[in-house]
Amino acid sequence: MDSLSRDRLPERICIVGLGLMGGSLALALRGRIPILIGVDRDESACHLALERRIVHQATADLSEGVQQADLVILATPVRTILHALAELPRLRPEGCLVLDLGSTKQLICDAMEMLPEAFGAIGGHPMCGREAAGLSAARPDLYQGQTFILCRNGRTTAAIESAALHLIEAIGGRPLSLSPHDHDQVVAVISHLPYLVAATLLRQADETLWPVSASGFRDTTRLAGTDPYMIFDVLLTNRKAILVALERYQADMEELRILLETADDSALIKWLETTQTHYQAYRAHMKP
Amino acid sequence: MDSLSRDRLPERICIVGLGLMGGSLALALRGRIPILIGVDRDESACHLALERRIVHQATADLSEGVQQADLVILATPVRTILHALAELPRLRPEGCLVLDLGSTKQLICDAMEMLPEAFGAIGGHPMCGREAAGLSAARPDLYQGQTFILCRNGRTTAAIESAALHLIEAIGGRPLSLSPHDHDQVVAVISHLPYLVAATLLRQADETLWPVSASGFRDTTRLAGTDPYMIFDVLLTNRKAILVALERYQADMEELRILLETADDSALIKWLETTQTHYQAYRAHMKP
Repeated sequence: MDSLSRDRLPERICIVGLGLMGGSLALALRGRIPILIGVDRDESACHLALERRIVHQATADLSEGVQQADLVILATPVRTILHALAELPRLRPEGCLVLDLGSTKQLICDAMEMLPEAFGAIGGHPMCGREAAGLSAARPDLYQGQTFILCRNGRTTAAIESAALHLIEAIGGRPLSLSPHDHDQVVAVISHLPYLVAATLLRQADETLWPVSASGFRDTTRLAGTDPYMIFDVLLTNRKAILVALERYQADMEELRILLETADDSALIKWLETTQTHYQAYRAHMKP
Repeated sequence: MDSLSRDRLPERICIVGLGLMGGSLALALRGRIPILIGVDRDESACHLALERRIVHQATADLSEGVQQADLVILATPVRTILHALAELPRLRPEGCLVLDLGSTKQLICDAMEMLPEAFGAIGGHPMCGREAAGLSAARPDLYQGQTFILCRNGRTTAAIESAALHLIEAIGGRPLSLSPHDHDQVVAVISHLPYLVAATLLRQADETLWPVSASGFRDTTRLAGTDPYMIFDVLLTNRKAILVALERYQADMEELRILLETADDSALIKWLETTQTHYQAYRAHMKP
């Protein structure tokens, strides 16, 4: 651990999972890290990462990949992160720093707290993505200007917090601290519910309707292209909060349906007006 | 009507409504029409259209605007189109050609059929738009490459059909013929339902959640910015088909909620996989 300092990025970083998120992180870090190691169980992703010089070393073997790293970044679907966290004490008994990029945080932070004291760990969730998956969809600017949530937990040391903040700075992200519980509640509404809404909408239109579709349908359904295995883990590991968000959405939609069905025109126009006002406030807030 | 020919655009066109759609149409036609007249009850829109030389003449008076036109294009919310169609026989007893750009077509085509025989009329619906409204949001390329639906009806003559096709060609649109009934069924699913879905989603997140939102929430809620008065007319004039589409959406969402609640993981992963397959087929179809 002697290469670590509170004032700079770790010198040996291992990224586990060379998909969209891990691959984009490697691209954003390229040239700034003396030793960047990639781990992916898909050997073709390892070959591609080496061929494009995205990493210095690549392996399908988690054990081999994490051996030399000061900082291990877990960039796989959530349940694979949980599995790796359970393996780490055996693979690296001397400890290391650990950050993850998983989409839900309570179970991951709980698992981080189970790590031995030789580890320093913090939960992370960059609020960015694309509907395309895999290393070929990775982009060096994916994190640029995007919110990067950090979730402290009982295993969070000053060293891992500092390393995570330096990393976020290096890739142009904007750090935001949240508790794992608050994170999972918030993303259930702002990230997981939108997937369910988009996916259910997409399924309403078969191919006979596609020729009439335009940018509105395309944009509203974009999240339906999300990698099913990634979102499956999200739904399994944040089920309770997502169900609460979904039920509130359904209740609000039923209220709207009743306005339509009963032809309550004055209540309907008020609903439409307040929606546009809400939208304009949201977009004004989101402008840089 | 002597300036009309089946082989070219009408020489005198009046666009009623200088908002996003009418303004973009005027911009797309600029320089190709000897006399382009704009009508908008908002006098500031008239001033802006003249100042930017988007039209040759502009007036807040519908009667004055339609007097000289070979072709009148109604580009207002649906109920205002219905009102103008009811007025036209009195304002232009000698008849003219009429096209509209309204978002629903059955009631408009019914009203077109009530026009005297001196008129030739066809329903139109360009499948494009932006969440911003008004002339300042207008763009000359709004119609470029976009589907432009035409709905024939009992008042559709060869002259108006030819004029509409020449117009669509001039602005780069792709004409598609549908019956008014089929149009309204299709857009209920592909255009009106997405608004309701996006608007209900936007309303789930108050300002405390906005800092965590990213491109997924932004894109899925984009349609919530739609002009409330435009969409109000849509909901009123296509209520039945929209209610059918909304109820089917709600039923499918409830099925998904039950999969989540009962933790039916094998059915859930199958649902997620078929959604992504459906999305990929849709996007492959939409590629130029």
